[in-house]
Amino acid sequence: MLPERLTRLIHLLQRLPGVGEKTAQRYALHLVSVAGELGGELGRELLELRDSVRACELCGNLAEVDEHDRAVCLICRDTRRDPTLLCVVARVQDLLAIERSGSMRGRYFVLGRLLSPLDGVGPDELPLEQPRAKIAEQKVAEVIVATPPSVDGEATALLLARELGAIGIRVSRIASGVPHGGDLEFADQITLGRAISGRRSIDFRR
Amino acid sequence: MLPERLTRLIHLLQRLPGVGEKTAQRYALHLVSVAGELGGELGRELLELRDSVRACELCGNLAEVDEHDRAVCLICRDTRRDPTLLCVVARVQDLLAIERSGSMRGRYFVLGRLLSPLDGVGPDELPLEQPRAKIAEQKVAEVIVATPPSVDGEATALLLARELGAIGIRVSRIASGVPHGGDLEFADQITLGRAISGRRSIDFRR
Repeated sequence: MLPERLTRLIHLLQRLPGVGEKTAQRYALHLVSVAGELGGELGRELLELRDSVRACELCGNLAEVDEHDRAVCLICRDTRRDPTLLCVVARVQDLLAIERSGSMRGRYFVLGRLLSPLDGVGPDELPLEQPRAKIAEQKVAEVIVATPPSVDGEATALLLARELGAIGIRVSRIASGVPHGGDLEFADQITLGRAISGRRSIDFRR
Repeated sequence: MLPERLTRLIHLLQRLPGVGEKTAQRYALHLVSVAGELGGELGRELLELRDSVRACELCGNLAEVDEHDRAVCLICRDTRRDPTLLCVVARVQDLLAIERSGSMRGRYFVLGRLLSPLDGVGPDELPLEQPRAKIAEQKVAEVIVATPPSVDGEATALLLARELGAIGIRVSRIASGVPHGGDLEFADQITLGRAISGRRSIDFRR
């Protein structure tokens, strides 16, 4: 009962992550009826974006393409960052989350994928050469592995520890435990197990 | 930590209904990194859509603009529809929901708004002339008022009943009560009150 063109828009919107038919329909109706110029602006932005944003050639974060057709992200351009500290994450989203926390003063490397034998991603499919080169160039002293605390994330962390630890640098893993504000009663067994095994002494003398 | 252009896209996406910063960021990263051509396709579609879809000039549903720059929707074009039955809804979304139920064989009129004294929408702000003209032209015998069972929806229904009932046609209201599969235990008082007062005799002789 909708124009064919609108149905096509709804199908495209359904390809966004977590968007089903009803949500896509809601977005589409908003874009054509209520919001006036939003549809046009969004359309233009999307078309221009295609040629002007791609993965940072140094770390895999998203970067604007410059006039020399090179893409280096804001973090890699920032000379105040500590080049000897490298944080390895799975996705750009994870990098942004860590940046929001304000607790990383080093640089990043975005793997783009995790070890996942079930999906056919073995050690050879992981981009290990790039971080290795980065470690040598920047004289990296510590690699913080911030892959998610899932089966695939842990496997990837172990692989990275083995491969990069062999170079002779410190490889550390982010802590896993009960989240801030979380309730022990509702924490799952694995999380509680990790909270216990990852316990740290409280220094009461300070 | 993201290119400015991407931040702009995220701000635009946040103007979609129900989309906050995190969801917008998720959509934007999906559009630039994972989905390949989705961003471009969506961009083109949105730009073309602007000139080719607008409100149906007969009923307010969304319609494709034809070569004579007229917009008449698929329902108004469908001659198999009963022109003597008119269903008044608040929004295009509501029309689509009723169409999905397959229980309306007549035509529609989309009000676009509801009476809402608090938001400054009085009887004069409602498009009543158009349905009145429609009723006269199409020899409408019954108007089904399918505005939502909310305070504003009920007020609008009463107004429509008074204004259109004065012409001498039947004005009916969709039933309100416990939804299919709903639990009486968890139904609110108003819904249960409506379910009781709107009760219908069971014809056991059939």
